[in-house]
Amino acid sequence: MLHLQEDLCNAKRQTLIHRLQSTKLAAQSDIETEDEAWNGLSIKQVEFNMIACSFCGLGQRIAPQHRIALSLHGISKDLNTRVPDCFSADRFSDALLSACRMYVEDCSRRSLVPTKVSILIVVGDNEGNIYDHRALIGCLLLKSPEVNVLYHSFNYLKTGLKLDSNFRLFVDNQEIAVVYFRTGYTPDAFPDEETWNVKYQLEQSLAIKCPCIQYMLANTKIIQAALSKPKYLSRFFQPDSASYVNILSTFVHQYTLDEEMEISDSTEIQYAVNDCLLRPDDYVLKPQREGGGNNYFGEELAQKLKSIITHSERKFYILMKRIQPYTFENYILNSSSMFEESKARKMVTEMGIFGAILARKNHIFLNECSGHLLRSKPLESNEGGIVAGFGCLDSPFLV
Amino acid sequence: MLHLQEDLCNAKRQTLIHRLQSTKLAAQSDIETEDEAWNGLSIKQVEFNMIACSFCGLGQRIAPQHRIALSLHGISKDLNTRVPDCFSADRFSDALLSACRMYVEDCSRRSLVPTKVSILIVVGDNEGNIYDHRALIGCLLLKSPEVNVLYHSFNYLKTGLKLDSNFRLFVDNQEIAVVYFRTGYTPDAFPDEETWNVKYQLEQSLAIKCPCIQYMLANTKIIQAALSKPKYLSRFFQPDSASYVNILSTFVHQYTLDEEMEISDSTEIQYAVNDCLLRPDDYVLKPQREGGGNNYFGEELAQKLKSIITHSERKFYILMKRIQPYTFENYILNSSSMFEESKARKMVTEMGIFGAILARKNHIFLNECSGHLLRSKPLESNEGGIVAGFGCLDSPFLV
Repeated sequence: MLHLQEDLCNAKRQTLIHRLQSTKLAAQSDIETEDEAWNGLSIKQVEFNMIACSFCGLGQRIAPQHRIALSLHGISKDLNTRVPDCFSADRFSDALLSACRMYVEDCSRRSLVPTKVSILIVVGDNEGNIYDHRALIGCLLLKSPEVNVLYHSFNYLKTGLKLDSNFRLFVDNQEIAVVYFRTGYTPDAFPDEETWNVKYQLEQSLAIKCPCIQYMLANTKIIQAALSKPKYLSRFFQPDSASYVNILSTFVHQYTLDEEMEISDSTEIQYAVNDCLLRPDDYVLKPQREGGGNNYFGEELAQKLKSIITHSERKFYILMKRIQPYTFENYILNSSSMFEESKARKMVTEMGIFGAILARKNHIFLNECSGHLLRSKPLESNEGGIVAGFGCLDSPFLV
Repeated sequence: MLHLQEDLCNAKRQTLIHRLQSTKLAAQSDIETEDEAWNGLSIKQVEFNMIACSFCGLGQRIAPQHRIALSLHGISKDLNTRVPDCFSADRFSDALLSACRMYVEDCSRRSLVPTKVSILIVVGDNEGNIYDHRALIGCLLLKSPEVNVLYHSFNYLKTGLKLDSNFRLFVDNQEIAVVYFRTGYTPDAFPDEETWNVKYQLEQSLAIKCPCIQYMLANTKIIQAALSKPKYLSRFFQPDSASYVNILSTFVHQYTLDEEMEISDSTEIQYAVNDCLLRPDDYVLKPQREGGGNNYFGEELAQKLKSIITHSERKFYILMKRIQPYTFENYILNSSSMFEESKARKMVTEMGIFGAILARKNHIFLNECSGHLLRSKPLESNEGGIVAGFGCLDSPFLV
């Protein structure tokens, strides 16, 4: 994908950017905090996702569902504030529709006359999260019935896609204003050259990409590790500003395993590797990946770390201090609840904040918080993926 | 049930009435109409339902769903007006909550201090329409999280019910403000004396009943047949009023089979029976029942009619001219659509209008249209019940 990026940079065709982002935060036990209100807890960032951010569609439905469930259990006071609203499907629909309008304006500026425009959602061949997508599409169509939504896989696009001489993108003869990627962040999404070619053409096109390739690259774990360092964060925030201090306080220690990236130096790396091999449960080893299921924990981490540390493969990983989240007891309701009695389990929780940004060059048209997503999972499960079956959708309950 | 009614009338305890009603209308081919705009169609009333009126919960969700489906098929112009909104779950929730407030006021007037009040929904032991009920309950709880909703069968209430000396109703020690009957309109709902006793106690109580027993009785087919006659309708509407003329025009011919009720006279009955035996497909024979699946059509009608006409059993039936509805081609999407290809079928459609009325003696507090429900079914199916598997939920599409 880096290759693609260089090509496109040279071509300087991509003037429109658009991302839908999700920041995940988790509350961490931290006995050193002095803030009594947080009762010994502080907020730590797990990661930042540009493309593997699901549940903007279904997320909006969780708050009403949990309010109903609480009412049925006799907890009714101030429910509308204690279980905060989340309008992620509305906000993301609005952002996608704004992007459509921006595309039309941009075409007019180039004296192109777009016909009716469409949104192309690119999904996997055996997409597992269709109900979430359908919830977003439903919301989109209720807001704007005339917008056309296409829902296709890379495989389908191998034959159905066309770029005209102005780099306008057409799929089945319908002009695409926005390409919303819900796939394309794992190696198996690109099994052959033709798939890469589809991705290349989508990126080449005038259509607004969500996320654009630059944002996908800026979203790698290495960049996230870099931004956790004062020397890189200070490029974007004044070191004496409150934002700088607040943001910096959300990072746990993150290390590259090679000093070549100029993020961690050899002393730091040496210390982290030694400490990790002594206390592997205090760390997580993350490859340059989005989506769940790829991280190493515990003894497996130690084995993996030993096997890569002397090879160039180490450049593809970051070593991160493991967040020790606040634990509580709760119940998970899922399809197996039909067959076995629910019992309280030790759980941990992770808060995601949805965001949408729509920009052209340095001009930002829209940059907003688009809702929240609380995910809870049993303490014993390292991974939190909901579609993967580890975690479940949850709601904050303010006390 | 008539016995109950007499008892209660004597006791004169029931001062609060509340009904949720549904009027079903169907468009009938009528070449005699002169109204060009209706293009040869006129509106005919199928029946009036007080208790067997389902889908106020799910009905509200149909319009958005069909708007989304139409958008996906490229039909997007003026969708919000062409597929009209239906807020039946909201309106019925509001009506039930108004009834709760009225109960509390009524208690205060009697110097009773109600504790937190509850709504009791009475359902069947093996209730089949739970998703519709849950949709209404969800809507209720989102509007008013503090209201308590109990959901029980007559069977459960045999032991869980208590009336205090002021006839306040308690179920599991929770004070019931409103009893919303979703069952109790078929003989098999009352298998034993204890069940009748539960019904009796519910009716005796101060709680507002939906529908009250008077309305249930006024809703029998015999009363509907009576109201189709000028001499009875003119009790409620001035014969020279537009309402009188309009309402009268919606009735098809309805006959009792015994002149004792003073609805149809012997000449009329003689004519109708002879005509029906010659042309049974032009008639429907209806017992004194609510809910689908009990009517006689065609050859079966002729057999039944011959077997009852000389017996007193004839008093329990009305003979009604069959409405010949407008037919059109459409598709039904249901669970079997997963396994077989959908194909266009000849369909007929029936429009229901939800209504809510809340009154004390002659004082009407609320009397409003609460939404609509369009049901479509294949032409070859005599019955239109959706839970029974004959029909499906539909939406009007204004042209």
